[in-house]
Amino acid sequence: MKLYEHPGFPNPRRVRIFLAEKSVEIPTETIDVPGGAHQRPEFLNKNPSGLIPALETDTGEVISESASICRYIEELYPTPALMGENALEKATVDMWHRRIENQLFNPLGAYFHHSTQGLGDDRYRNAEWGEHSREQARAELKKLDTLLASRDYISGEQYGIADITALCAIDLAQSLKVANLDEFEHLHNWHSRVSARPSAAA
Amino acid sequence: MKLYEHPGFPNPRRVRIFLAEKSVEIPTETIDVPGGAHQRPEFLNKNPSGLIPALETDTGEVISESASICRYIEELYPTPALMGENALEKATVDMWHRRIENQLFNPLGAYFHHSTQGLGDDRYRNAEWGEHSREQARAELKKLDTLLASRDYISGEQYGIADITALCAIDLAQSLKVANLDEFEHLHNWHSRVSARPSAAA
Repeated sequence: MKLYEHPGFPNPRRVRIFLAEKSVEIPTETIDVPGGAHQRPEFLNKNPSGLIPALETDTGEVISESASICRYIEELYPTPALMGENALEKATVDMWHRRIENQLFNPLGAYFHHSTQGLGDDRYRNAEWGEHSREQARAELKKLDTLLASRDYISGEQYGIADITALCAIDLAQSLKVANLDEFEHLHNWHSRVSARPSAAA
Repeated sequence: MKLYEHPGFPNPRRVRIFLAEKSVEIPTETIDVPGGAHQRPEFLNKNPSGLIPALETDTGEVISESASICRYIEELYPTPALMGENALEKATVDMWHRRIENQLFNPLGAYFHHSTQGLGDDRYRNAEWGEHSREQARAELKKLDTLLASRDYISGEQYGIADITALCAIDLAQSLKVANLDEFEHLHNWHSRVSARPSAAA
């Protein structure tokens, strides 16, 4: 297997943390996204979506979408389970993970691409949409703070993929100055807990 | 189990088709979304997200998010598999399903809520974002038409959840007059094929 990614970007970090939690090491290759390498034929021939991260399997298939790459790793290396162990857990983790993606991670991405310089490329920008997305992300942080008053991790009592995506989203929110965790006691405690895991350095 | 839903809405239809393909019948209850029932305490106490569809399990847990409900059904009733059978298939189906959701289904929802009367409620609207989303959805239909020139179903040679979400999205696109399938030969053929399955009437 080989992971195409970019150090410092939030989406590849989701996969790196997931792999670290499984103690799985695979070779990586950096795709120079700011330099446009993700839109050149060498990469597009492998991965028509042009998105990173992307995982090339040992038989040459390419899987993109961070969560789908994690699904593949989870199936190959089920222990420790990061996406639930039985039907109810799997559905519940998936529900919380989707909520983190849709209400927090993606809105932060929209803020980054629409209301800041983003990647400095010439994509369509709608600053008002970016600002609305920023407020949506902030509202979600408040909801998560309330949630984490009564549970240790986002999808319940077990650390899992929803925590990984939330950690990457919140660290992005902090670097974009969208959030100051001092405002959120329970979220702050959760953030300290998940950031102390060795995988967070991945 | 019990499914809270609303006839005629695209998201509940995804779950109804999924259940029909599995030949699983469960009781349903209609939540009067246009009348605001999804925001009343009786429903919010069960399902704090306020979203439909939502599935109540036999032990009283409530799962929202259409894809997470499908995950639960897939785990309980694995045959026929609609989300892949082995690690590579599961990841590949998940990747295509996410692409259909992110590039087609969600943009159509954004067009509906931002650029049309939508549900007639007082939510934030950004008409320019809605129009951009409409164009994004149309561009994705063109890509899908190209894809379906060389395969029978969206995630490969097997019908699955990506086809179900795409069918619901495309029927929504037609009702919103975003798409006329006569423009897309291969997508049109695929649409005839999946619409002829008995589950499409669900």
